[in-house]
Amino acid sequence: MLKDFTEKTIATEMVFKGKIIQVQVDQVKLPNGKVALRELVKHPGAVGIMAITPERKLVLVRQFRKPLEKTIFELPAGKLEEGEDPISCAQRELEEETGYQAETLKHVVSFYTSPGFANEILHLYQAEGLKKGQMKPDQDEFVERVEWSLDECLARIASGDICDAKTIAAIYLWQVQEMKAQ
Amino acid sequence: MLKDFTEKTIATEMVFKGKIIQVQVDQVKLPNGKVALRELVKHPGAVGIMAITPERKLVLVRQFRKPLEKTIFELPAGKLEEGEDPISCAQRELEEETGYQAETLKHVVSFYTSPGFANEILHLYQAEGLKKGQMKPDQDEFVERVEWSLDECLARIASGDICDAKTIAAIYLWQVQEMKAQ
Repeated sequence: MLKDFTEKTIATEMVFKGKIIQVQVDQVKLPNGKVALRELVKHPGAVGIMAITPERKLVLVRQFRKPLEKTIFELPAGKLEEGEDPISCAQRELEEETGYQAETLKHVVSFYTSPGFANEILHLYQAEGLKKGQMKPDQDEFVERVEWSLDECLARIASGDICDAKTIAAIYLWQVQEMKAQ
Repeated sequence: MLKDFTEKTIATEMVFKGKIIQVQVDQVKLPNGKVALRELVKHPGAVGIMAITPERKLVLVRQFRKPLEKTIFELPAGKLEEGEDPISCAQRELEEETGYQAETLKHVVSFYTSPGFANEILHLYQAEGLKKGQMKPDQDEFVERVEWSLDECLARIASGDICDAKTIAAIYLWQVQEMKAQ
């Protein structure tokens, strides 16, 4: 018998309508009847791809992230375009950012990245049957591919070089898979 | 010899200044000289706590998340207050949301939750020496505690009941720890 914690919307104000995100402030009624404000970011959602080469290395991309003002290492990933199927997006982003093509992409898990303030959902896929092709980054996208072993990935998490939620979740999952395979 | 992908800021416009988040649009110069816009959300950062009871169950909280319009299960977590030390924040949030006190809190890893559009960083701590106390939620905070075994957590990830990035990363890490301990 779960308690109902729903916050009912009394009023909504759109405060920013950008090309990628929209921001709104909702006035809500709390379960205790009080009124509160909620600041919400709307995001189209994204995919991330866990691609492990036949040499048992994880394919990562190095990319500048303006919100952080730094260049970090992440899973290949990308935003969903309107109406786009996540698996098609994953196939496209993997090829554009890394040059690899996957025979199959298996859905692993989907999660909200920042449920406290944003509705972004990230769909994580695992690539199987990787084949090397040609990198085709978007004209205005600047990425560099690296390939690291599990031990190197774990060392890069410890050092802070890998500092992205989806990438860390995928590496821990990969570690579980490797331990099970032994 | 890593390439410089830095996007230099040409102009910044603050488009929303909320109580929790701030949103700005930056005009940037790309490495190829072209100009682009970046929509950025500024967030104060947060902590999450991985607390495993002596019965080997993970302590989770059930909470309504307005951006998702649903009630989900997550690690106990909370936003950093201005100038607050993450470890103090973790101690406070663990006690407020779950009633547990930890003898020690060990820093596990810190990660950006949505580096594409936000600078939120989440500091993950592992609680050791858990002692049961009294739940003290904020007056306007509505949370319910649950405690699940590793198998139940994995089943809840598979079913989509657990659908939060930090919580999934922590559960995969817990699985690694359990496998190592065997």
